Amino acid sequence: MKQLKTLTLFLIVLLGLHNASNSQTATRENLRIPDILGYKTLKCDFHMHSVFSDGSVWPTVRIDEAWLNGLDAIAITDHIEYTPHEEDIRQNFNRPYEIALPRAEALGIILIRACEITRSMPPGHLNAMFLSDVELLNREEWEDAVKAASEQGAFIFWNHPGWQKQQEDGVAKLSPIHIELINSDRLHGIEVVNSNEYYPEAFEFGLEYNLTLFSNSDVHAPIGMTYDMAGGERRPMTLVFARTRTVPAIRKALFNQRTVTYWNNNLYGEEKYLRPIFNKSVTIKNPLVELTKKSRKYIQIFNDSDINYELKLNGHVEEITVPHDITLYARKTVLFQIRGKSEDLRGRKRIRIPYTIQNLHISPDELLPIEIELNVIFKEIES
Amino acid sequence: MKQLKTLTLFLIVLLGLHNASNSQTATRENLRIPDILGYKTLKCDFHMHSVFSDGSVWPTVRIDEAWLNGLDAIAITDHIEYTPHEEDIRQNFNRPYEIALPRAEALGIILIRACEITRSMPPGHLNAMFLSDVELLNREEWEDAVKAASEQGAFIFWNHPGWQKQQEDGVAKLSPIHIELINSDRLHGIEVVNSNEYYPEAFEFGLEYNLTLFSNSDVHAPIGMTYDMAGGERRPMTLVFARTRTVPAIRKALFNQRTVTYWNNNLYGEEKYLRPIFNKSVTIKNPLVELTKKSRKYIQIFNDSDINYELKLNGHVEEITVPHDITLYARKTVLFQIRGKSEDLRGRKRIRIPYTIQNLHISPDELLPIEIELNVIFKEIES
Amino acid sequence: MKQLKTLTLFLIVLLGLHNASNSQTATRENLRIPDILGYKTLKCDFHMHSVFSDGSVWPTVRIDEAWLNGLDAIAITDHIEYTPHEEDIRQNFNRPYEIALPRAEALGIILIRACEITRSMPPGHLNAMFLSDVELLNREEWEDAVKAASEQGAFIFWNHPGWQKQQEDGVAKLSPIHIELINSDRLHGIEVVNSNEYYPEAFEFGLEYNLTLFSNSDVHAPIGMTYDMAGGERRPMTLVFARTRTVPAIRKALFNQRTVTYWNNNLYGEEKYLRPIFNKSVTIKNPLVELTKKSRKYIQIFNDSDINYELKLNGHVEEITVPHDITLYARKTVLFQIRGKSEDLRGRKRIRIPYTIQNLHISPDELLPIEIELNVIFKEIES
Amino acid sequence: MKQLKTLTLFLIVLLGLHNASNSQTATRENLRIPDILGYKTLKCDFHMHSVFSDGSVWPTVRIDEAWLNGLDAIAITDHIEYTPHEEDIRQNFNRPYEIALPRAEALGIILIRACEITRSMPPGHLNAMFLSDVELLNREEWEDAVKAASEQGAFIFWNHPGWQKQQEDGVAKLSPIHIELINSDRLHGIEVVNSNEYYPEAFEFGLEYNLTLFSNSDVHAPIGMTYDMAGGERRPMTLVFARTRTVPAIRKALFNQRTVTYWNNNLYGEEKYLRPIFNKSVTIKNPLVELTKKSRKYIQIFNDSDINYELKLNGHVEEITVPHDITLYARKTVLFQIRGKSEDLRGRKRIRIPYTIQNLHISPDELLPIEIELNVIFKEIES
Repeated sequence: MKQLKTLTLFLIVLLGLHNASNSQTATRENLRIPDILGYKTLKCDFHMHSVFSDGSVWPTVRIDEAWLNGLDAIAITDHIEYTPHEEDIRQNFNRPYEIALPRAEALGIILIRACEITRSMPPGHLNAMFLSDVELLNREEWEDAVKAASEQGAFIFWNHPGWQKQQEDGVAKLSPIHIELINSDRLHGIEVVNSNEYYPEAFEFGLEYNLTLFSNSDVHAPIGMTYDMAGGERRPMTLVFARTRTVPAIRKALFNQRTVTYWNNNLYGEEKYLRPIFNKSVTIKNPLVELTKKSRKYIQIFNDSDINYELKLNGHVEEITVPHDITLYARKTVLFQIRGKSEDLRGRKRIRIPYTIQNLHISPDELLPIEIELNVIFKEIES
Repeated sequence: MKQLKTLTLFLIVLLGLHNASNSQTATRENLRIPDILGYKTLKCDFHMHSVFSDGSVWPTVRIDEAWLNGLDAIAITDHIEYTPHEEDIRQNFNRPYEIALPRAEALGIILIRACEITRSMPPGHLNAMFLSDVELLNREEWEDAVKAASEQGAFIFWNHPGWQKQQEDGVAKLSPIHIELINSDRLHGIEVVNSNEYYPEAFEFGLEYNLTLFSNSDVHAPIGMTYDMAGGERRPMTLVFARTRTVPAIRKALFNQRTVTYWNNNLYGEEKYLRPIFNKSVTIKNPLVELTKKSRKYIQIFNDSDINYELKLNGHVEEITVPHDITLYARKTVLFQIRGKSEDLRGRKRIRIPYTIQNLHISPDELLPIEIELNVIFKEIES
Repeated sequence: MKQLKTLTLFLIVLLGLHNASNSQTATRENLRIPDILGYKTLKCDFHMHSVFSDGSVWPTVRIDEAWLNGLDAIAITDHIEYTPHEEDIRQNFNRPYEIALPRAEALGIILIRACEITRSMPPGHLNAMFLSDVELLNREEWEDAVKAASEQGAFIFWNHPGWQKQQEDGVAKLSPIHIELINSDRLHGIEVVNSNEYYPEAFEFGLEYNLTLFSNSDVHAPIGMTYDMAGGERRPMTLVFARTRTVPAIRKALFNQRTVTYWNNNLYGEEKYLRPIFNKSVTIKNPLVELTKKSRKYIQIFNDSDINYELKLNGHVEEITVPHDITLYARKTVLFQIRGKSEDLRGRKRIRIPYTIQNLHISPDELLPIEIELNVIFKEIES
Repeated sequence: MKQLKTLTLFLIVLLGLHNASNSQTATRENLRIPDILGYKTLKCDFHMHSVFSDGSVWPTVRIDEAWLNGLDAIAITDHIEYTPHEEDIRQNFNRPYEIALPRAEALGIILIRACEITRSMPPGHLNAMFLSDVELLNREEWEDAVKAASEQGAFIFWNHPGWQKQQEDGVAKLSPIHIELINSDRLHGIEVVNSNEYYPEAFEFGLEYNLTLFSNSDVHAPIGMTYDMAGGERRPMTLVFARTRTVPAIRKALFNQRTVTYWNNNLYGEEKYLRPIFNKSVTIKNPLVELTKKSRKYIQIFNDSDINYELKLNGHVEEITVPHDITLYARKTVLFQIRGKSEDLRGRKRIRIPYTIQNLHISPDELLPIEIELNVIFKEIES
């Protein structure tokens, strides 16, 4: 006798009908980050596991989580060389993709066939994406596994390069083997963020060697057990700037380094991407103000994105006092207070107030500089 | 010795600097309801009190609350005839406006000079707006108070017409006096919602007599003590469709019945306003789908507004099964599941699925009917 | 090459060290329901699935979820006769228990070896608990499976007796076969609640036939995907009143019908259990009050449990007005307003105010009646 | 014509009947901090303002807020010398107390008659409590105001001693005048915390000069506008250890320095109070564990209070590895992981693990040291 309770129950869950009075389980979170430069800003996670290696969920769960979390594309990257459940699960490295694909198509999630080549250092752990047959990567020597991936046209990136199990001091270091892989076009990207770790050196190597930057969850447990999403926490994501929402467009974007890493309300990436993201997120509601003597005025600034921008003053302003620190909260308007410094000022002035954004990183030790531009008319008090 | 601690503290609060680690107190909530028909959709509350009558806050608090709650315009409407704090507060009916105005200007809130004429029935309680001198309404006879308001060009509306203190059965009833006031152009609007009460009869009178419809908080205590805003509750609001965000444009909109009442996730108003609000809020992400045999597909529907739309099936669909009930949650995407009813269907069909929206009311007993339109291609299974 | 990243990561998660700044993921929710009658009130869920049948998580996930959700004991009850993952997972009905047990011991969760006998009606689906070898239940005929369970001393209960796939009208009905099973001591309990469904008829049968009452999640997906725990929703639980927190004590409690079902803020069970739960939860802070004339006084009532008790007046009170409806919110104090009805009352009176609790069910159509007892001293106004 | 809408509305609010479906506005938060040493731990706030000086709420609002926030006792301390609303409000320094008292009695809040003597430095701002007639403190010279307070048996404390308007560097400094006031028994306490500021020097002076320590909100706006209570933020409180919940017992406790200051999840006070608060909050669920070889075990620690205790390792443990940092979250159980360091250990050992609690301060630069005590039985692996 067969029964279909699971399927029924699960659709109930996804349709939001379960305990309809208060459950919002099956709604998709829309992470608001603007499209830029004519590209779509796709939210992606290219590193995660299922029961087919050392994860604890069935592959379809990764699709459901992706849909709920507002992702556009994922890769399930089970280990080739580490399969602790093999007493119970028949080993077949193409199965996670095959099992998850129908659900991905049903929910409109882009699924990329991939795996994790899991070796000691060097080269450590490498994710290979856009594969056609994962089984071919199950080889004794890592060089053969990489070769099998490359022959399938794979995009390959280095995982958690500062992971303490493989770098005792937690500092990512490029070995000659990594450089050789890069030079021979067999290594194309690097994780700047993995799970709950950020590797500043990886960010530096990425910029220096023109590697694509990644931020991935590497999630093994159910995602909701790892991130306190209800408390506002979000999983790490790789933002991919792609012409269309398709596998080929993502592939092209990755080979062209069109990514930014998103983690814990921080963005790490090239200035050419970070600046338009900020500019398209933020609106100054009343950039033209009048100030009489040393009076106080409020500028209202609206942030239409889901990133809290944390601004810190980065220079001197002659004519007016301005906030030293101010956070532009996600989807909110905040007040930015100014005040004339002198009673003698007259006339209209364009004032550019320099800030750096503490959570937008254009290199491991540089923050994105921006300017808040106001038009201030200094007036005498009317009598 | 004078000190300025209050002012300093309060600005700290508004600037979000207080206990910066976790406080988001001073952020403005942006209630997302689309602009329609070439008008701006202004969020307004035209009924509230201060310590100058029987409220418990200083008039400036109403401005701060309005800013935090995302309002565009308010009126402080203290009672003329009921001033229980007069042992301690000097009576002057223009003071609430005068005290609150500088704060309103600083925060960009539109403040309308107004008051509440507070009489037994009929005519009950009337709010008079756009006054130039409230003191002139302090008259023994209510007819004289209304006359003084009319002479100032006031817009006048009837408050809580079904209030049990004045209508024992809680049912709003138009008396000959109200009809006379309407006919003589001295009564222009009616509260359909006051605080936590909805008056269906008032909605009916409003539509029948061409009165402007209002939904107001009538708040007396601090707003956060009356509504559980943190729990997602919102104060009642009158949505005003105005050409610009100015007093004259609001005045014109009110005299032209361009309002919708918003309360507790419900809208009450004319179909010509409710339909474009819904249409501009909701996007069907994948309206074109293929169905093979009796397979199941998900349509993804995104609601970009802050209203949860509660849809209920309102008719029959021939070709496919569709959800009987579905809520389009605010700012979320939900899944709308369809399935072919017969294995014999072939070809492309435009299917219109009829729903009513349970929380969008176009009269006391009519819900807004809408259609979800899909293009379905019925195919044979590929072999 | 083997690596231990999973284990490390997961411990990080459980230890709350992951992203320590804001994550509270690895804290155990302590559902506060008082111990009664000398028993411990254990929170249990005896129906759930893993990848070994049609669930989507590895068995250890059920232990982690149980710990996080504040459960004391669980049973993983994979289907014997329905194993849709068998292409990938080697079938062995003892494995879910064996795999989960070390984690259960580490986290102090009581794990009971069990399974679900999954047949068409009658007898439908039966859970068998306290097994020693699940494999022995894998028999062609359901009678043989039940016999194999009974021979191991199993406690057996009937699952989702009103499930629409097996009872078209959704109404639980006892067949002669069920009655025969009960009479022959092969059926000991019944699910009154399964997942998001409540079966009033099952409640009635349970009381009539002296069956143990259950409320179970029957969860297939990760628990956080099924219940909006962050939004305050809780999974269904069977409250077991056991002498100690051990397997034998739970077994004894189940065979002695010492359970209450908990679901969606409702309790369903015998009055002898519900009454002490309410009484031990609720404290009247000021039961002695003075009333002068028709003055108003507030009684403060504190509810130290995690159940919101919803009281509705159930009779008449002579001397004072009292609330018609009042909810005693979980872990909060609320105000209960009283007022003298007459100005002529004098002296001290014990007043018992009769309520029923709308969410405490002592039979399908009886609510628990309780009394709020006050001592009121009626006085003249002092002059 | 008089109407009673306000009163009615407000009671509706307090009774939780307003919009009963989702509002929990009128529930009292019960801040869980244990009673210690035979005293009740009363939660108090002895510094706040109303419209009678520079606050923005009517005095009764302070009572409602106190009830909602779980306070036991408050003092409304309007400025004598700073009354910016005097154009509109008749000055009478006893009125805030008189107006608020009936509400305090109705809600069971202890209200203490008090005021703020508001002078330039020295002596700065002083709160005088337990007054019988506040008007008598309205004197030209501050010495006369203090004298008038002392003659009424007042308890007097120094407010915000490091306030930048009065101490340019923000550092509290005792002047000869303060020392003279202390020595002549005219100054008995000091604010260690005011609003969003903590003054470490004040904490030091307090300990050195045997002054009673205070943590007060000094709130001017509605409390919910100043603290993000919904986001879990709490107002500052002075914890008073009193024999009974009465004015005389509070007075005696204050004159005997029986207080601890609570702010932003920190406690500042004497070790003799902080230690029992921690000890009565925290339970080790399984203090006796067995360890075989280098195995890993979890200790479960439950914190029954509303304070998150942040522990940091403060020394060396020979036999086992222990967490370096661990937060014992409010009302939750967390896992504390241990592991044997050597395979050669045998037998039962009492192990004391030394921590300091980062948010429990027994002086400006000393944290409360505590020990987690375990009984570990080191065993050979059974073969």
